[in-house]
Amino acid sequence: MTQASSTTLGRNPANYSALTPVSFLKRAAHVFPQRTAVIDDDMTLTYGEFYSRSRALASALQGLGVQQGDTVSALCFNTHELLECHYGVPMLGAVLNAINTRLDAAALAFILNHGRAKVLIYDTRMHDLVRDAVATLATPPKLIAVQRDESAASDIDAGTLNYEAFVGNGDPAFEWEKVADEWQPIALNYTSGTTGNPKGAVYHHRGAYLAAMSNAMAMAMTPQTVYLWTLPMFHCNGWSYTWGVTAAGGTHVCLEKVLPEVVLARIRDHGVTHMCGAPIVLNMLMNDFHQQSARMDQPVQFAVGGAAPPSAIIQRGRELGFDIVHLYGLTETYGPSTLCVIQDEWRDLPVDDLARKMARQGVGLFAIDDVAVAGPNPGDFAPADGQTMGELLMRGNTLMAGYLDNPGATAEAFKNGWFHTGDLAVMHPDGYVEVKDRAKDIIISGGENISSQEVEEVLYRHPQVLEAAVVAMPDEKWGETPCAFVTLKKGAEVTEADIIAYCKANLASYKAPRKVVFAELPKTSTGKVRKNVLRDQVTGGASGT
Amino acid sequence: MTQASSTTLGRNPANYSALTPVSFLKRAAHVFPQRTAVIDDDMTLTYGEFYSRSRALASALQGLGVQQGDTVSALCFNTHELLECHYGVPMLGAVLNAINTRLDAAALAFILNHGRAKVLIYDTRMHDLVRDAVATLATPPKLIAVQRDESAASDIDAGTLNYEAFVGNGDPAFEWEKVADEWQPIALNYTSGTTGNPKGAVYHHRGAYLAAMSNAMAMAMTPQTVYLWTLPMFHCNGWSYTWGVTAAGGTHVCLEKVLPEVVLARIRDHGVTHMCGAPIVLNMLMNDFHQQSARMDQPVQFAVGGAAPPSAIIQRGRELGFDIVHLYGLTETYGPSTLCVIQDEWRDLPVDDLARKMARQGVGLFAIDDVAVAGPNPGDFAPADGQTMGELLMRGNTLMAGYLDNPGATAEAFKNGWFHTGDLAVMHPDGYVEVKDRAKDIIISGGENISSQEVEEVLYRHPQVLEAAVVAMPDEKWGETPCAFVTLKKGAEVTEADIIAYCKANLASYKAPRKVVFAELPKTSTGKVRKNVLRDQVTGGASGT
Repeated sequence: MTQASSTTLGRNPANYSALTPVSFLKRAAHVFPQRTAVIDDDMTLTYGEFYSRSRALASALQGLGVQQGDTVSALCFNTHELLECHYGVPMLGAVLNAINTRLDAAALAFILNHGRAKVLIYDTRMHDLVRDAVATLATPPKLIAVQRDESAASDIDAGTLNYEAFVGNGDPAFEWEKVADEWQPIALNYTSGTTGNPKGAVYHHRGAYLAAMSNAMAMAMTPQTVYLWTLPMFHCNGWSYTWGVTAAGGTHVCLEKVLPEVVLARIRDHGVTHMCGAPIVLNMLMNDFHQQSARMDQPVQFAVGGAAPPSAIIQRGRELGFDIVHLYGLTETYGPSTLCVIQDEWRDLPVDDLARKMARQGVGLFAIDDVAVAGPNPGDFAPADGQTMGELLMRGNTLMAGYLDNPGATAEAFKNGWFHTGDLAVMHPDGYVEVKDRAKDIIISGGENISSQEVEEVLYRHPQVLEAAVVAMPDEKWGETPCAFVTLKKGAEVTEADIIAYCKANLASYKAPRKVVFAELPKTSTGKVRKNVLRDQVTGGASGT
Repeated sequence: MTQASSTTLGRNPANYSALTPVSFLKRAAHVFPQRTAVIDDDMTLTYGEFYSRSRALASALQGLGVQQGDTVSALCFNTHELLECHYGVPMLGAVLNAINTRLDAAALAFILNHGRAKVLIYDTRMHDLVRDAVATLATPPKLIAVQRDESAASDIDAGTLNYEAFVGNGDPAFEWEKVADEWQPIALNYTSGTTGNPKGAVYHHRGAYLAAMSNAMAMAMTPQTVYLWTLPMFHCNGWSYTWGVTAAGGTHVCLEKVLPEVVLARIRDHGVTHMCGAPIVLNMLMNDFHQQSARMDQPVQFAVGGAAPPSAIIQRGRELGFDIVHLYGLTETYGPSTLCVIQDEWRDLPVDDLARKMARQGVGLFAIDDVAVAGPNPGDFAPADGQTMGELLMRGNTLMAGYLDNPGATAEAFKNGWFHTGDLAVMHPDGYVEVKDRAKDIIISGGENISSQEVEEVLYRHPQVLEAAVVAMPDEKWGETPCAFVTLKKGAEVTEADIIAYCKANLASYKAPRKVVFAELPKTSTGKVRKNVLRDQVTGGASGT
């Protein structure tokens, strides 16, 4: 074969089309029209119905003027409406921006403004929050209200559309078209990162397709899979499982609030086989189920991301019928990018040794080409000795396109041909990476990222605060909570409770410090606060530099 | 989000790379270096060894002058060497041309010449065949001999390389690079088609990656998968399972010859979970195992392609522990493109009813966008009534790039934005397609395509034959065999045995007619032979027009 001859064999409409996860729903509706796709409190949808409703949503959004490239934001709990948005929005080539439901009005307003939301689909139980946020916007989005609770928000504005009526007016046979270019954006997900303002990670259709296939395959999903939504769908589009479960033809079981008794009932009622979540969710559920001796009727796979599962939890999970696996990823990596693949020979290890193995973030998933630990000089890599720390780097096909309107941060994240996670890791001799110290400024509380800088900015705004630094403090329930170190201005008279109250008034409540220490801040010779010293003080140990 | 802003979020080396199935081996070697990748008669390879040997092969081929775009042909049985070729060759951006081991010298010579083979890796048990074929070529390929049987071919030419020595001299740590463009060709697979000369279907890296993922997911493959090679790897690269099993991290169990006692021993010795094959292979194995009451220790999934599994075989399979599924595909579709997905409610059907359902070719696999049945006019589709026949059409990401050096056939195959299978099908109301009459001129014998036109051409060369037409004749063992209708010249004196002997002397033996009928040929008003009439005569039924 010569290259000349092979290049005449070009792409054509029959042998090439954009990879997009929307095609998974089309296929599932074709193959399993009568199979249960979505179970929610208020309705159960077959795949035929799920597809029809998503098409109707796309049609109605088009009628509202939504076009390719427009942002449609959603502020919803884990309900069928938000699942529908994962298909109806990209059917138009529009971009889904699923927003964290725990934000305060200022953060919500920032995201709606920065992402140029044309439409906001929101749950009426967050009506006041939405009203406060939207009031500050020069160009407010069109509002579509999801009214799942009749008692909520009776004061909805007359101009706000009702989601059910809106979808009801759409065309369930709407002829959507695949995007022309699989690099087109499909989702916009804001991350707090290390700087104060959230950054908007832009996902493309190709990456979403590959992440969904990769995650479905990593968890061995099949049409028999029943997936319970203990992980928020606004976290990296539910780690791509909003699309991956559909790819497998499995069943989505919705869940508005992670209450142990509700989770247990759903698992039992629907034969749940898979679920995901933050460590706090895993720990809470395992402890609660353990107290109740609630054994599962079928094996349930629980993928935990954000921190390693402790040995006691692995043990409890085993006794109850949960198979726990440990994933790692970031908003920038479509959620899971590495998996701590459990080797056959680990199965017989004592649980403490297994937990030590499982503490590793592991190896790249299918669509990740390389996972590496940076060495001291650009282009170097740390030796695979399990000791030498360096920044965790990645490259592959499930990395974001970049940060929206932030070429500086995008270039920084992708410098030297690698994505820079900001986490410090070691490479073990067996090729598994282990994160030793996460990006120093981030506090992960109950699975939510809190930027210490954002908290510090509020503290600095307090009239009596001279200097402030915030670090993560270990917390049994939340994993971590913010601890503030504050130097007061001369003659200031203010208490710990005052400072906390001030933060709560100016931040989402979960971001406020739980503890405030009044002290001089240790600094480097160039005047930077030495947070590692503060961390040692909080944890009573050495955290590295 | 505006389109202007999103288009600045471009591809870079960290967030985009070519999809190629070679990356599956790299990953498996990283994650499972000590796990068994390949079990063969002469050696067992871990994934670490499989990857090292493939890299060494790539390095050695590069030393021989093989470059991107060059064709490397292989004429091998289902052995580790041919598996290594599936990785070592594309590591260089070269194109693997795995050739049917049942061809005659003329067909082999045609393929080597047409595909411009630069290298031919062949099993020495086919030495005479290779010598005869290569002797006719103006530019013979470099020869690399796989000598698995010491007694075979003592007269190998001094210039021929020995595969083991060749790989032994390569660099097992060879730094291969991904192809720059995922559309680059990875494989060249010849199909007989309806015209006499085989056509070379060109596969690209993207399609091979997606077909492998799709097939692995469709068969629910995991690292625990043990795949027995009852399907020739030269058939569409083993229906992409040469790559798909590796993607899952499963084990390849090699098999040179499909002998029931060997198959049974491998299943038992290695805990085989998956296998594929032509109907003749399925039927032979199920009948043999049934006679022996050879029940499986673990469930074994058997994917059959080429014809529907009969109810008796489904029943026997069930009793023995085989779960049979029915696939459909062509060389042009990387093998499987549709799967007869078994619906939950079918499980309880009487086996005859199940067999009727399973006779359908089914629904598109993950990377196929659309499967349709053409209507009477271009752009029309047949109604989904299970009755109206039309040509089966497909489009999606696992269709060949085109036929090598055959723009006419490529354009014809892809006309009007669809791939034309040449098979006649109906669309059932549930969206499942069923092929009712395969491309009329093809005879499928023991899983091998025989072009009736090629046989006719030989018949026409016989000095006493005036006219000839060949159609498929049902055969209990082979599925079909060729039946020739011949009109002799005036005064000719020749017997059925003479004609068959003549064909055997000029064709691969399996292509020779089993039966010759001396008769006038029925013709249309425009003088074309009415093969449907001949088919009716052979089958005793109506075959459609």
